[in-house]
Amino acid sequence: MLTTTDPRTRAVAPTGLEATTAEQADAIVRAAQAAFAAVAGHDRAWRAGLLDALADALEADRVELVAVADRETGLGTARLDGEVSRSAFQFRLFAEAVREGGYLEVAIDHAGQTALGPAPELRRLLVPIGPVAVFGSSNFPFAFSVAGGDTASALAGGNAVVLKAHSSHLETSARSYAVLSDAARAYGAPDGLLGIVYGTAAGAALVAHPLVRAVGFTGSLTGGQALMDIIAGRDEPIPFYGELSSLNPLVITPGAAAARATEIADGLYGSFTLGSGQFCTKPGVAFVPYGADGDALVARLVERATDAAASVLLNERIATSFDEIRGRLVGEGAVQLLARGTDRGEGFTAAPTVLGVEATALTAEIAEEAFGPLIVVARYGDDRDILAALDAVPDSLTATVHSEPAESDAVAALVGELAPRVGRLVFDGYPTGVRVSWAQHHGGPWPSTNSQHTSVGVSAIRRFLRPLAYQDAPEAVLPAELRDGYRGIPRRVDGRLQLD
Amino acid sequence: MLTTTDPRTRAVAPTGLEATTAEQADAIVRAAQAAFAAVAGHDRAWRAGLLDALADALEADRVELVAVADRETGLGTARLDGEVSRSAFQFRLFAEAVREGGYLEVAIDHAGQTALGPAPELRRLLVPIGPVAVFGSSNFPFAFSVAGGDTASALAGGNAVVLKAHSSHLETSARSYAVLSDAARAYGAPDGLLGIVYGTAAGAALVAHPLVRAVGFTGSLTGGQALMDIIAGRDEPIPFYGELSSLNPLVITPGAAAARATEIADGLYGSFTLGSGQFCTKPGVAFVPYGADGDALVARLVERATDAAASVLLNERIATSFDEIRGRLVGEGAVQLLARGTDRGEGFTAAPTVLGVEATALTAEIAEEAFGPLIVVARYGDDRDILAALDAVPDSLTATVHSEPAESDAVAALVGELAPRVGRLVFDGYPTGVRVSWAQHHGGPWPSTNSQHTSVGVSAIRRFLRPLAYQDAPEAVLPAELRDGYRGIPRRVDGRLQLD
Repeated sequence: MLTTTDPRTRAVAPTGLEATTAEQADAIVRAAQAAFAAVAGHDRAWRAGLLDALADALEADRVELVAVADRETGLGTARLDGEVSRSAFQFRLFAEAVREGGYLEVAIDHAGQTALGPAPELRRLLVPIGPVAVFGSSNFPFAFSVAGGDTASALAGGNAVVLKAHSSHLETSARSYAVLSDAARAYGAPDGLLGIVYGTAAGAALVAHPLVRAVGFTGSLTGGQALMDIIAGRDEPIPFYGELSSLNPLVITPGAAAARATEIADGLYGSFTLGSGQFCTKPGVAFVPYGADGDALVARLVERATDAAASVLLNERIATSFDEIRGRLVGEGAVQLLARGTDRGEGFTAAPTVLGVEATALTAEIAEEAFGPLIVVARYGDDRDILAALDAVPDSLTATVHSEPAESDAVAALVGELAPRVGRLVFDGYPTGVRVSWAQHHGGPWPSTNSQHTSVGVSAIRRFLRPLAYQDAPEAVLPAELRDGYRGIPRRVDGRLQLD
Repeated sequence: MLTTTDPRTRAVAPTGLEATTAEQADAIVRAAQAAFAAVAGHDRAWRAGLLDALADALEADRVELVAVADRETGLGTARLDGEVSRSAFQFRLFAEAVREGGYLEVAIDHAGQTALGPAPELRRLLVPIGPVAVFGSSNFPFAFSVAGGDTASALAGGNAVVLKAHSSHLETSARSYAVLSDAARAYGAPDGLLGIVYGTAAGAALVAHPLVRAVGFTGSLTGGQALMDIIAGRDEPIPFYGELSSLNPLVITPGAAAARATEIADGLYGSFTLGSGQFCTKPGVAFVPYGADGDALVARLVERATDAAASVLLNERIATSFDEIRGRLVGEGAVQLLARGTDRGEGFTAAPTVLGVEATALTAEIAEEAFGPLIVVARYGDDRDILAALDAVPDSLTATVHSEPAESDAVAALVGELAPRVGRLVFDGYPTGVRVSWAQHHGGPWPSTNSQHTSVGVSAIRRFLRPLAYQDAPEAVLPAELRDGYRGIPRRVDGRLQLD
């Protein structure tokens, strides 16, 4: 039987869950394929209704879900309550996107004479791809797990989803799954549209399964690479959407340090310790100018960290890895330990840690992601120091700049250097707290992700869709949205975008 | 020195070109990176003008380009003349798309209160990725080579392009490159925005080069897999857009056979022998009903093929491979040789070949792509025979159905089976002759391609773009298209699509 561990006490308890066998995983994927085929008969309104029903069901079980997740993750009820809200919001936002219909990217070119001669009629839209495997993350038991954005976006597109429960919160996963699958059944969805497996072997079996058409993954670079290796061994390659690792550099200009040293130090402290520093968007390195203003900023950051007690980490693997990486970084000759909060005995915990380095001495070894409450402060003289140091920083999901209006020329130059390295540029704020919306992009160059797509926000749906074109098709075989009389969604007709 | 071979005579001639060394390839990629950075300072209107200038230059050199290509490919001047027109058309269509601006997928979410609390402002668009390596194909010396759609779409997105000339038409590639790079220089583009390399080793060096951000490839499955292996060995994975292999099943219903046996046989003959059968969209297997109508259709097809003389193939590798595969297929116990045209001695040639098989006896071995003028006619009793046979047919770029209006229910069921296996469904026509337009999709499930993107038509541009989001950015650092006052392109603002 699989067990669950309370990270606050290290107490291990049975879960009542068993690791899914290879035969069971195969049956679950086959059921997902059958359900995928069955829902193809439903229209967008039906699917939007399903997503709304899932959101409602999550919220109806909020208290119990939060309690289970708090016991398994130690993330605290306030954060987890917010995360349930966010998960429900994601389902509803995708319902809205499905109703709006722009995600179909409908294009119609009528037959006719062109510069190259007579041309046939073409009508194209995006269609779902089939069963999608979604790997839950450790650090978001709801919003990037069973009830998360990958599930919502894959279902929104018309796909079936088979979840791999994260070993760190099995009971949260099982309860989330029960809530969602009960709601789907009550709504009239076919059995199998949502499936779940437990255990590493079953997860690997999903990725290798010929009926699985894509994989969504949020986790470690090592875990992601293991799954990519499985994909490389498949007869048919499939897309792997991995969100893997990110250092998220943050730059504080001299002007910003002069104007807002304490405010920025407090904001930065809050950001790198949020959720015990267990966010892919945690700022892992902050560039602070030399001089009195920078000194004041660092002093405040050090004060905040020194005064703090250790907080709970999600599981033993993360705690062990954090300790190892912190130890390695502190051992680097160029690195100074500036602050470390009070450690606590019980549970998997980590104390907020601030390390210092000269920007000119920053190396790839020092710019390693430590998943937990740790930040490296890199002191710099001018922007050349930053630019040289950035070459040691792996490309990331985000980069952040704190500056003052008078510095706009320098900021523009800096942004020019940062933009090719990241997927989101944040100004005078903090990269943690990722807005779920139409314009969001959560993704970046390798190793932060391995694709050009987002895993947060509406356009995440495109990962699980592919184009299909109809040439000179009789109207009867066309999807409704491709017929001439259809109204109410944006379509590009003969090259011109039309709103409805 | 590299040589070129006339496929009509097998005469080998020197080209004056040398294989690019590793050092030269590195310098070319570095120059592309520098040019990429330089063109980032230009706006969309500038880039659209560049694409138009490239189109004009191609057409101005049309006579010479066609003459060189005809000598190297044996495709004939009419076809090659049309292909130059198509290449120029592609550049102009991408210019139109760049001016229209929808491809940027601009989305703006203003800051404000949301269901999840206060949210920052987000502004997103798609941005270019850097130098792109484009591998020319053997079978389209213009439209899928140096002057082809990958080049046009990558440049349209704002990227630099480094071409790998196909060994089968080196002088055509060199002349195309000279025409395009001269025109780019005259337009004011930085040197290095277009580069070219010669030789297999230099092509491999491109794919391995850390500054290359994506690869576009049209060619064999084997060649594509070799490049994918190189990508797997990179420190940073990059997208590989491969268009690799396709059998393109075509179904003729009993009604269509009854109504149009001769017309369909003639159309099918034209399609599978077009360009000596050297198209990725060539129909490789046709399902023909048993009975007198089907017999008449097959008889006509056999008559056309028997009467025909061999036509020229592009090169020795293709000719050898075609002979091997034809020999293997004819040797399959279930296969009958129905017709083979007259072979010709000189040059690399192949005679049109029609093979017959019972649909129920179709195997993966028989459903192998033979790149050249060969078609397998699979006779069937009812749709169950077709569906069973389709499991032996690899997923493809296209599938085609010829039917009559009275058969609409059966056609709908058949389309339901074909759609998951292909990227384009063709009705009462032929898959060869791919329209270049907004609604086109040229791509399909593995092994026809390895991605969910098209390589023909406007949306091909998306392969060479990635999203970038700006959070709470000062207006001065925003690209013009993301600013509040900007007009003239479609944008999604607070979730609502607006035309301008």
